[in-house]
Amino acid sequence: MSEYIEHDKEGISVGLVEKKLFTFAAPPDEMVLENGAKLGPITIAYETYGTLNPDKSNVVLILHALSGDSHAAGYYRNESEKPGWWDIMVGPGKGIDTHKYFVVCSNIIGSCMGSTGPCSVNPKTVQPYALDFPVVTIGDMVAAQKALMDHLGIEKILCVVGGSIGGMQVLEWIVRYPDMVVSAIPLATTTKHSALAIAFNEVARQAIMADPNWNNGNYYYGPKPNLGLAVARMIGHITYLSDESMRLKFGRRLQDKSDFSFNFDADFQVESYLRYQGKKFVDRFDANSFLYITKAGDYYDMEKLYGEGSAVKAFSKAKAKFLVVSFTSDWLYPTYQSKAMVKAMKKNGLDVSFCEIVAEWGHDAFLIPNVRLTTLLRGFLERVCRETRK
Amino acid sequence: MSEYIEHDKEGISVGLVEKKLFTFAAPPDEMVLENGAKLGPITIAYETYGTLNPDKSNVVLILHALSGDSHAAGYYRNESEKPGWWDIMVGPGKGIDTHKYFVVCSNIIGSCMGSTGPCSVNPKTVQPYALDFPVVTIGDMVAAQKALMDHLGIEKILCVVGGSIGGMQVLEWIVRYPDMVVSAIPLATTTKHSALAIAFNEVARQAIMADPNWNNGNYYYGPKPNLGLAVARMIGHITYLSDESMRLKFGRRLQDKSDFSFNFDADFQVESYLRYQGKKFVDRFDANSFLYITKAGDYYDMEKLYGEGSAVKAFSKAKAKFLVVSFTSDWLYPTYQSKAMVKAMKKNGLDVSFCEIVAEWGHDAFLIPNVRLTTLLRGFLERVCRETRK
Repeated sequence: MSEYIEHDKEGISVGLVEKKLFTFAAPPDEMVLENGAKLGPITIAYETYGTLNPDKSNVVLILHALSGDSHAAGYYRNESEKPGWWDIMVGPGKGIDTHKYFVVCSNIIGSCMGSTGPCSVNPKTVQPYALDFPVVTIGDMVAAQKALMDHLGIEKILCVVGGSIGGMQVLEWIVRYPDMVVSAIPLATTTKHSALAIAFNEVARQAIMADPNWNNGNYYYGPKPNLGLAVARMIGHITYLSDESMRLKFGRRLQDKSDFSFNFDADFQVESYLRYQGKKFVDRFDANSFLYITKAGDYYDMEKLYGEGSAVKAFSKAKAKFLVVSFTSDWLYPTYQSKAMVKAMKKNGLDVSFCEIVAEWGHDAFLIPNVRLTTLLRGFLERVCRETRK
Repeated sequence: MSEYIEHDKEGISVGLVEKKLFTFAAPPDEMVLENGAKLGPITIAYETYGTLNPDKSNVVLILHALSGDSHAAGYYRNESEKPGWWDIMVGPGKGIDTHKYFVVCSNIIGSCMGSTGPCSVNPKTVQPYALDFPVVTIGDMVAAQKALMDHLGIEKILCVVGGSIGGMQVLEWIVRYPDMVVSAIPLATTTKHSALAIAFNEVARQAIMADPNWNNGNYYYGPKPNLGLAVARMIGHITYLSDESMRLKFGRRLQDKSDFSFNFDADFQVESYLRYQGKKFVDRFDANSFLYITKAGDYYDMEKLYGEGSAVKAFSKAKAKFLVVSFTSDWLYPTYQSKAMVKAMKKNGLDVSFCEIVAEWGHDAFLIPNVRLTTLLRGFLERVCRETRK
């Protein structure tokens, strides 16, 4: 989520990649969503890296967070462009080694990065769905990913991995399709959002909905709610960092000035950074998608959905081997939530490794080069691979 | 800041109180502000409770936070109305006992609660100042409070007390007028905002400025930027609470419904609470004042202003006795900041007591009934009083 990423020099790029599209659930075979509504046709944008082995046993499925997309690694045209969002982790010789694994990353439904979402055309009206798009859930996102796996002829997934609401999708996978998932890596995530996480999402949504250009979601032919979306993104960015990372990154340093302006311009670097992040985001993201995806995150409650409120009961459906990772300075998905998850896994006798990584970069830490994280993922995948072969 | 306050039953109300006005700095004797601009005339709204003793040695000056006002205790018309914002602490027999002390609370300049601020009439244009109002600082607020003290004939203050940016005013008092202040109680405060605190304030300001009704500050004759101000207030409210207090207060409970709405209404209680707080705030607060006061808080840097960057050097100017209080769950003004302050005080050989109160209510804790806080303040004031008499 942070754009302040120093790219890892370890490993090389997967190189040129291509965004692919898969469309399914055409009427009258629409997908029935968790809330009972029907959606179809559904397009999934996805990318693959590496080669599927003959027995199709080397699939790693990457699940992205709020503002992510299918473009996890490589580049579309040339090396000088910004690589995929997890290029530091995915590539030949990297933590998720594309020499060994066939990596799939698909854009979630509800998003605006190629998969069907509120900005897609509603076939019934031949207009963008806008708020007529149904409120999709994490479960619906995963059901769509399952359809993609079927399409690719994949029956077994060596590992599902993702952070933040990507991690929620990981959890959904292991209980929804327990026989399909060999191992799982939920990173910086939780079985359910805390009131604090919901609160931040809600204020961000309110910022969008307060923008008159939002126009109840109907802005696709007019001015966009850019100011509201920028504020929403700024709120998000604060929650992805931490008190410590902000102190290290910005402190109270001023931006291109030696003294205060005594007006309402950006004086501090942190103000300038947030304004920049907000402005940049509106060029690539759809405000309605922001509403839908944050709502899906807030609604997700694995314990309620699968365990009648009990995490232990919810994980009783799981069969995968787990690597759970949290970060010390992540206050949006704090370690205590990962620990509760691990406890529930262990009570079910599941094979689980847990690591809390000391990192000052807050929730964003899973997207930032970290030798410890890379080593953990590499080692876990190798072990699972080895044990699967036996 | 939170409105979810259960009122302390200890002590009784100061009863009927009256807002008073004091005007000074009429042209050509305008007050020269920290940024070099001149401001005048300046009106200060203030209230007093209790009786000034013959030797004028029993003055307690209360300094309020962002959205506070001069109405710290009692009521204006009848007992059924909402009492002053610190009524739990100020009154006969309460922590700050109005049987013993002459309590003064004045509204800061820049505010909209009776003191001169951006919504006041600019005598030069006979229109509201709006953004022509100069950017005032914590120092300017304190200079105006000093003018009020002079007007009241008060030369010595037994204790200055305040939380949040009220605490910053406390710190400013003890270095700006060290011979005037016998003791000081900075509560839940800091010598300077962290990057995180600045970030939250900046996003809140951006939310206001993104509202087209804000109109570059000129909205006093038209529709007000209520939606932007509500979002700003919602952001504030999140920072005043804590992960733990939100879990206890709201958890994932739904608001008046048994299941999700699958639309963008408020589903969770925490959403409903934030929306309510945002809406309520716009009825009583001016958006421009929000901009000015948060900016004053962000600019404040006691170490830079008085110690060339050193807290130890800054506090070398102080002579007061201190009671410093922080709260375990306050992540906006965390304990480590209070501890740094205490360390710098001690290095100067100052008389300082420090208490970190275990409280789950986050930054708001200083406004919520807390026997420990009440006892601490009462005891400290009694000790200072006793030692002063010797």
